[in-house]
Amino acid sequence: MANFEIPSEQWAQVLEKSGGPAVYKKIPVQKPGPDEVLINVKYSGVCHTDLHAMMGDWPIPTKPFPLVGGHEGAGVVVAKGDLAPDIELGDHVGIKWLNGSCLACSFCMQADEPLCPHALLSGYTVDGSFQQYAIAKASHVARIPKECDLEAVAPVLCAGITVYKGLKESGARPGQYVAIVGAGGGLGSMAIQYARAMGLHVIGIDGGEEKGQSCKSLGAMAYVDYTDSSQDLVEQVKKATPDGLGPHAVLLLAVSEKPFQQATEYVRSRGSVVCIGLPANAYLRAPVLDVVIRMITIKGSYVGNRQDTQEAIDFFQRGLVKVPYKTVGLSELQDVFQLMQDGKIVGRYVVDTSR
Amino acid sequence: MANFEIPSEQWAQVLEKSGGPAVYKKIPVQKPGPDEVLINVKYSGVCHTDLHAMMGDWPIPTKPFPLVGGHEGAGVVVAKGDLAPDIELGDHVGIKWLNGSCLACSFCMQADEPLCPHALLSGYTVDGSFQQYAIAKASHVARIPKECDLEAVAPVLCAGITVYKGLKESGARPGQYVAIVGAGGGLGSMAIQYARAMGLHVIGIDGGEEKGQSCKSLGAMAYVDYTDSSQDLVEQVKKATPDGLGPHAVLLLAVSEKPFQQATEYVRSRGSVVCIGLPANAYLRAPVLDVVIRMITIKGSYVGNRQDTQEAIDFFQRGLVKVPYKTVGLSELQDVFQLMQDGKIVGRYVVDTSR
Amino acid sequence: MANFEIPSEQWAQVLEKSGGPAVYKKIPVQKPGPDEVLINVKYSGVCHTDLHAMMGDWPIPTKPFPLVGGHEGAGVVVAKGDLAPDIELGDHVGIKWLNGSCLACSFCMQADEPLCPHALLSGYTVDGSFQQYAIAKASHVARIPKECDLEAVAPVLCAGITVYKGLKESGARPGQYVAIVGAGGGLGSMAIQYARAMGLHVIGIDGGEEKGQSCKSLGAMAYVDYTDSSQDLVEQVKKATPDGLGPHAVLLLAVSEKPFQQATEYVRSRGSVVCIGLPANAYLRAPVLDVVIRMITIKGSYVGNRQDTQEAIDFFQRGLVKVPYKTVGLSELQDVFQLMQDGKIVGRYVVDTSR
Amino acid sequence: MANFEIPSEQWAQVLEKSGGPAVYKKIPVQKPGPDEVLINVKYSGVCHTDLHAMMGDWPIPTKPFPLVGGHEGAGVVVAKGDLAPDIELGDHVGIKWLNGSCLACSFCMQADEPLCPHALLSGYTVDGSFQQYAIAKASHVARIPKECDLEAVAPVLCAGITVYKGLKESGARPGQYVAIVGAGGGLGSMAIQYARAMGLHVIGIDGGEEKGQSCKSLGAMAYVDYTDSSQDLVEQVKKATPDGLGPHAVLLLAVSEKPFQQATEYVRSRGSVVCIGLPANAYLRAPVLDVVIRMITIKGSYVGNRQDTQEAIDFFQRGLVKVPYKTVGLSELQDVFQLMQDGKIVGRYVVDTSR
Repeated sequence: MANFEIPSEQWAQVLEKSGGPAVYKKIPVQKPGPDEVLINVKYSGVCHTDLHAMMGDWPIPTKPFPLVGGHEGAGVVVAKGDLAPDIELGDHVGIKWLNGSCLACSFCMQADEPLCPHALLSGYTVDGSFQQYAIAKASHVARIPKECDLEAVAPVLCAGITVYKGLKESGARPGQYVAIVGAGGGLGSMAIQYARAMGLHVIGIDGGEEKGQSCKSLGAMAYVDYTDSSQDLVEQVKKATPDGLGPHAVLLLAVSEKPFQQATEYVRSRGSVVCIGLPANAYLRAPVLDVVIRMITIKGSYVGNRQDTQEAIDFFQRGLVKVPYKTVGLSELQDVFQLMQDGKIVGRYVVDTSR
Repeated sequence: MANFEIPSEQWAQVLEKSGGPAVYKKIPVQKPGPDEVLINVKYSGVCHTDLHAMMGDWPIPTKPFPLVGGHEGAGVVVAKGDLAPDIELGDHVGIKWLNGSCLACSFCMQADEPLCPHALLSGYTVDGSFQQYAIAKASHVARIPKECDLEAVAPVLCAGITVYKGLKESGARPGQYVAIVGAGGGLGSMAIQYARAMGLHVIGIDGGEEKGQSCKSLGAMAYVDYTDSSQDLVEQVKKATPDGLGPHAVLLLAVSEKPFQQATEYVRSRGSVVCIGLPANAYLRAPVLDVVIRMITIKGSYVGNRQDTQEAIDFFQRGLVKVPYKTVGLSELQDVFQLMQDGKIVGRYVVDTSR
Repeated sequence: MANFEIPSEQWAQVLEKSGGPAVYKKIPVQKPGPDEVLINVKYSGVCHTDLHAMMGDWPIPTKPFPLVGGHEGAGVVVAKGDLAPDIELGDHVGIKWLNGSCLACSFCMQADEPLCPHALLSGYTVDGSFQQYAIAKASHVARIPKECDLEAVAPVLCAGITVYKGLKESGARPGQYVAIVGAGGGLGSMAIQYARAMGLHVIGIDGGEEKGQSCKSLGAMAYVDYTDSSQDLVEQVKKATPDGLGPHAVLLLAVSEKPFQQATEYVRSRGSVVCIGLPANAYLRAPVLDVVIRMITIKGSYVGNRQDTQEAIDFFQRGLVKVPYKTVGLSELQDVFQLMQDGKIVGRYVVDTSR
Repeated sequence: MANFEIPSEQWAQVLEKSGGPAVYKKIPVQKPGPDEVLINVKYSGVCHTDLHAMMGDWPIPTKPFPLVGGHEGAGVVVAKGDLAPDIELGDHVGIKWLNGSCLACSFCMQADEPLCPHALLSGYTVDGSFQQYAIAKASHVARIPKECDLEAVAPVLCAGITVYKGLKESGARPGQYVAIVGAGGGLGSMAIQYARAMGLHVIGIDGGEEKGQSCKSLGAMAYVDYTDSSQDLVEQVKKATPDGLGPHAVLLLAVSEKPFQQATEYVRSRGSVVCIGLPANAYLRAPVLDVVIRMITIKGSYVGNRQDTQEAIDFFQRGLVKVPYKTVGLSELQDVFQLMQDGKIVGRYVVDTSR
């Protein structure tokens, strides 16, 4: 077993008050409790949720400031408590949105730990991965095989898991059709690849020609451009399936409300509409009669559980899913937030904690 | 095998134009096609859908008038085509809403024949059970064991099947909790009994004390009165479950829109809200964020398939489900419609075709 | 929160060498680790497995002697570690066969903790409930509502959970038929009651008239006596279902090998045969052709997971399952083992640790 | 709609007595009943079952001789009865092992029509596809898109459907591991491709190096040679999975008994062993203890239902599954049987009915 020298201080991005900004500074390194590990974070993905945590504009409260954000951290275990037996120092692990849960409530007992009322959320209710040394519950960290590049795998730890979970929740079977709304975005591009690796046929829905080309290059068999007002979107999506009955499932990754109110129109009878995206203050809306006589299912899918996590990483490890990302230094995090706020982000940003 | 004398004429209730009224008169008896049976209808339940067929106020068109309504018919097979081998003359059978389907489309092949685009609907797109001799597809008629009373079983053939199907679709397992909205009505009273026979715990939701007593006498373990403005309905429903997390499933049998927009508030995380009732022009509505982070499922459940039908009858035959009904002569059908229009119906009406 | 005085010594039944006997003597009281609780065991059921532990005749090795047996212990939490947050001193809990598991392997992550390779087995690989103060993992102890009688609930903690799990694994739905082989025994009598509470119809199979009467009094709708050589067992079981196609599921609780090789003959096509009993050195055996063209499933069901445990206790708490048992003092345990070895046990024995 | 000239006579291969041989001769063309279609068979695959039909060595009786065998027929609809509405003359369709079923029994109602007690079996209980014009039930013929080559699709109609169904029955999910026993044979090579298209990882098991190369070229990630006595087969199969716990499912396509008694040793705990192959007089055999404490499932999978059929063809149409076959004239069928009897068949034979 390796032995690691752990400094007493480290670099971190610290939110000192609601609204930010993130401040790059030195803070002490924590010690893990008996059921925890200390992780030398190498890389961390940056997610819109991190911006929400800084701005405090979500209905769920964060931990009291100061807060270190980040929940897509990939790194190396450098210390561990006595009750973390299946992890060795030197193991590669990931910090997810779900930092820990009680593992004993009715949700945890049924492998639905993301619904645990005592869940700890990385970078939100506990300090996260925008620091060089972070704490996480040993039984919750993602196990990352050493073959995986820690830089490339970082965005899988939230975005990848989330879309993979949604595809599982959709109930779509290999050979069936899934429409992905928001297919041209960061989540969408991963969703297309997971869907293909799961044997599904993908209809990408997004706006503009460029996104259409991106969708098709990733394996979508059809693309519907919602900005093309010359054609009826509902009809187009249905026609994209060979029998014209519409896709068996719809994955809603969109950041606007309309698709959440439209998807039941083109999903196949007995099909399922899976909500994942979280447009601010958005509502589902659908006519009861149509939902009943076509036996449609609408469901929400949150982040994956630990098993979903390992499966999502496994697909990545086999090269079936590639994530386009751009890496900058941890010190530049506030610039990334600024780009996000300005709506100028394309693809995923990763921060390198060594600079 | 019995041999039956079949008259050339019979009594029927005929809708001659949209808006009615139903006219009690003599009409010819039809002959069954090769895959059909001719049924001497003894009793038929009367459903709100029959009123919709007469008034023509549903978005789905009926067959051209004249139309004979009725889709809860119980009777005896008196003639059959050559391709109806598993049925004998003299067998007791039921005419359901689903009179027939193609048995070969992708829905029929997966035992979802109610979703068949070629479905024939009794008393709506084909003549139904408000006559003494009705036609139905041999492979679709409900098989009724001779131990069953034909009068009492009639309402099971639509109302019973529908609520039983909804309970199956809910995914609730024996020992779990289901809230039934509209538990004090006709569908509701059957739903409580089916739920109990399936090992479920029932929370009845309806208005008024009398309905509460009815629910409890049928086996509901709790009752929540939505007319009681002194208490918060959502809190009450959640409190009715021992751990306070809310019921695992909700069955919406209500005829108003509000419960369809409220049920996601009290259903347990990971639970399911099943829509069955069809309030005019009603919409589902729910906040996306709540549906996602609590992983709630909302789904529509239409009528049962043939297997559901046989199972629903089986519960009835064993005495586990009793249906309160009142019998009048077929000749009095228009009076029943009048009571329905006036909102004066309590329980289920059955018509006796012999008078 | 209550505060408990914990003695330094206690009475226990200690196995000092393979083959026994159990020795009633004073031993020190242990202290719980950070993720453990100390339980003042009030009552413990006695299971055949306890005899196997003493005799050392199972292929799985026990912990090194001395060993304290017992895995159906019901008692009160009197001390707990720092990492057992959802349990309070004074809570009523149960010690199950599964004392603890890693909660982090692929089986634990999927709620199959009984398959965890690091599982701790009470009274087998760790000391169990045949003592006044026992240790168990906090996240694994069964939560027992205070309304439950600790004496009566003890046998539910292994026997009850096991048969309930088997019924869940069978896939049989409310209204379907399940044959229970060994229905007249201790496990069988609980299985009949759980099956009934789950809405299933039970065909009891066992030997002799007395067991038949017991089965019927507990709710079996039919009984087949395998000692009655005047009739063909396979035919009788099939005839006990209304359509003659046989039960949808078979639960094998038998202690002899023959039923394990016969059940596929009478189970319905597409049905499932669930193995639970563990006759020494027994083998499954079935013709491939019959299994294939009738699409039969044969599966093993081990003990329940934590969720199954809570559900099984919930059925008990509602009075749906009653367990016949006889209570003796913990000091008399060796006598109970002697009765077991002599095959003279009827029903379940419970030991009272206070005497 | 096309119009076809139908001759009164046609060429066929006729079995005139048990044991054969098949006699190539002219026989009359039949007329379809009201629920049937007449198919101008273009190509038919040859299956081992056809040899069993000729030899009469299966426990299930054939129709009385003369018998026309064949159940992998691909052709064109040239006539149809009045009750076959969703099929047009000129449509391309397939004749499967399941020629027809009642569509009304409890199995048919649940989409398990292969288990129908009234099932008609092509080339076995009714005349099959070794003739130029064959009859089949309209609602049962496989719908073949016109893009599919009729010659190449023929073997999909039995072999393809059967292995695809088995993979579905296994319950293995995309990303999981399946071991295929007999992976180097005709069924096996299709099974590997279906498994890959469904997102599964394949461990091929068969004998000899050549078969290993074939397996790997089709996408198997590992190959275990059972003829290599230098290594333990069970250990090798388990090692082929990254965590060493063994495959999640095993597909038994073997024609000898041993693998049916060995597969439970290497399947993962909670995994499933699916029996498809039918070695003469073979028995399943497995230790009860191991099946129980590892919660293993053993199940039989027969041919697919109509939905499975369409899905299996869909994978073929997309080019995801290729079948190696060799085509000879229908007149040479007896030679093919001779090769089969001599064990000299590699891959699948297809007969061309035009010569």
